[in-house]
Parts: sequence; C-alpha cells; structure tokens
Amino acid sequence: MTNGTLDGRKPIYLEELAPGRRFTTQRYALDEADLISFAAQFDPQPFHLDAEAARQSVFGGLVASGWYTAAITMRLLVTSGLPIADGIVGLGGEISWPRPTRAGDVLHVDSEVLDVKPTRRGDRAVVTLRSETRNQRDEAVQIFTAKLLVPSRPMSDSGSPAS
Amino acid sequence: MTNGTLDGRKPIYLEELAPGRRFTTQRYALDEADLISFAAQFDPQPFHLDAEAARQSVFGGLVASGWYTAAITMRLLVTSGLPIADGIVGLGGEISWPRPTRAGDVLHVDSEVLDVKPTRRGDRAVVTLRSETRNQRDEAVQIFTAKLLVPSRPMSDSGSPAS
Repeated sequence: MTNGTLDGRKPIYLEELAPGRRFTTQRYALDEADLISFAAQFDPQPFHLDAEAARQSVFGGLVASGWYTAAITMRLLVTSGLPIADGIVGLGGEISWPRPTRAGDVLHVDSEVLDVKPTRRGDRAVVTLRSETRNQRDEAVQIFTAKLLVPSRPMSDSGSPAS
Repeated sequence: MTNGTLDGRKPIYLEELAPGRRFTTQRYALDEADLISFAAQFDPQPFHLDAEAARQSVFGGLVASGWYTAAITMRLLVTSGLPIADGIVGLGGEISWPRPTRAGDVLHVDSEVLDVKPTRRGDRAVVTLRSETRNQRDEAVQIFTAKLLVPSRPMSDSGSPAS
C-alpha cells in the first residue's frame, strides 16, 4: 500500500473524515494552448479548438472541454486537496458544469465531506465528497459529488497513532 | 453554427432523437504509455503510473485514471458516436466506473437515448443519453448518463428537410 501522499502530506484515513470536513486545493491557471491540445486529443469540437468558430457557437467564445475541467480538478485534488491514504479511488458520482471554463481562468477546488458509509468489510468506507471547482470570480464551473473508497487506519497503526 | 460533423456524417437534430434510439462508436485500443502520460498530467497516483506500485494497490495492477476512460469515451462519442448538430454539449450527468480500465483494453461506447425534454425556449431540448463504455470482453468500464443540449432543426431547413 502507498502509505503516503505525493508531496509528503500526512495521509488521511477514514477515522479522520466526518461530514462537514473541508479541504481546499491550490490554484491552477488554464493555458489556452493546453486547453486546445486536450480538446484536439479527446474532445475535438470547434468550440474547444478554434476561437473564431467558438465565437459563433452557443458558448460565444473558446471554452474548455468539461473533461479538461474534470482532469484539472482531479490534478488539484490529488496534488493538494485530499491526502487520502492509498490514494483517491472514485467509484463514480454526479458531475455538472454550471458554466463554462475559459482559457486564462484560474481554478481551485473546495471540497466537503457529505457522508461516510462503512462497507460490510469494515476496513474501508464509501465517503461522499462534494467538490466545487471555482474560477477566479469564485463562480462554480464544475460540481462533482463523488463516492470515494477510503481505508481505515491499519490495525498495526492503532496502538501508535501517527502524530 | 457548425452545421456539420467532423467526419462529414449527417448532423442529427432533436427531431431525430427519441427514447430508445441507439448509437455505437468505433473501437479504441488503450496504449500503456498514453495511459501513464495522462495520469502523470492529471491523476498522478502510483496505481496509474507504475506497474510495480500498482500491483500492491487495491487494483492489483496498473489501471487507467477514470478521467482517462472518460476522455477516451468523449473522443469516441465525438468522432464516431453521436453526430449532434452544433456538437455534443453536456450539462452534466451521473458517471460510474464499475470496473477498472487497463492498458491494452479495447474500448467502444454503446449509447441510448433515455429521455427528451423540450426547454422553454422551444428551439432546443435536454436529451438524457446513457453511454456505456465497454471493453473487449463487453464488460462495462464506465457508465455515463448525461444531460445534453440538442438543437431543433432550424426553421429555414424545415421546408426542405435534408435527405
């Protein structure tokens, strides 16, 4: 098991997560070339690729693929949001994009634990985490309410809790 | 407006979508280097990056980020799945990953229209589309039930329907 996080932050176990606990990530500025390069690979539609075509679309200008917003959100959660022991393992969830993300936007993610449901195995739980991805005007550009698999603190650790 | 699709397929308007209508995409083989490169950018966790670390994880081996599966699914839908006039514009939806995607998997997407709800504006509707991303064993690796914004056929076209 990977008992640690990428940047050396203290890993979080189930026992430390309760409804209401919040996390905030660092910020990430969206570069237009990266946004277009992602779209060219994964979502090659004119309003994600070409500013002129995008001006004539329903968006009125170049916008990021929702999947690019989702990918950047994941990057922020993994690298600075939620140091879950053994990693962020998502089973699924509900995603929405209430408004578009555009090149130059600076995103961060605010997350809140909504629910913790033990599994029958007992050594892990399904945690419901609501993550709002917000731009520099603090407008939500993505809301993802995810079910995550989170492990309990291992028995061998219980006698000597990490501090 | 972009009255056409990337590959010249006939664009689909609202009038041609009804519950039960199905679409199937082409197939896409997942390359291990691409899977790792995506994870390095967007989901840098050991079980997406390193085969040895992944063997010791809950997955028992290297797996794709769920967001890579989502991105490949979008690529398949855009390029060969659903030639919606003006593009695939998703408002959001429910996503789940019932089993992992691994390098070497060959994915395709089976989609079905579940519901069509006119909007107040009348010139577009919200279409609920269930898309199952399946591997070479026909196992679902992602289920995405999305709300899409789909335009009506423009009035100027109505006297001379495309054929």
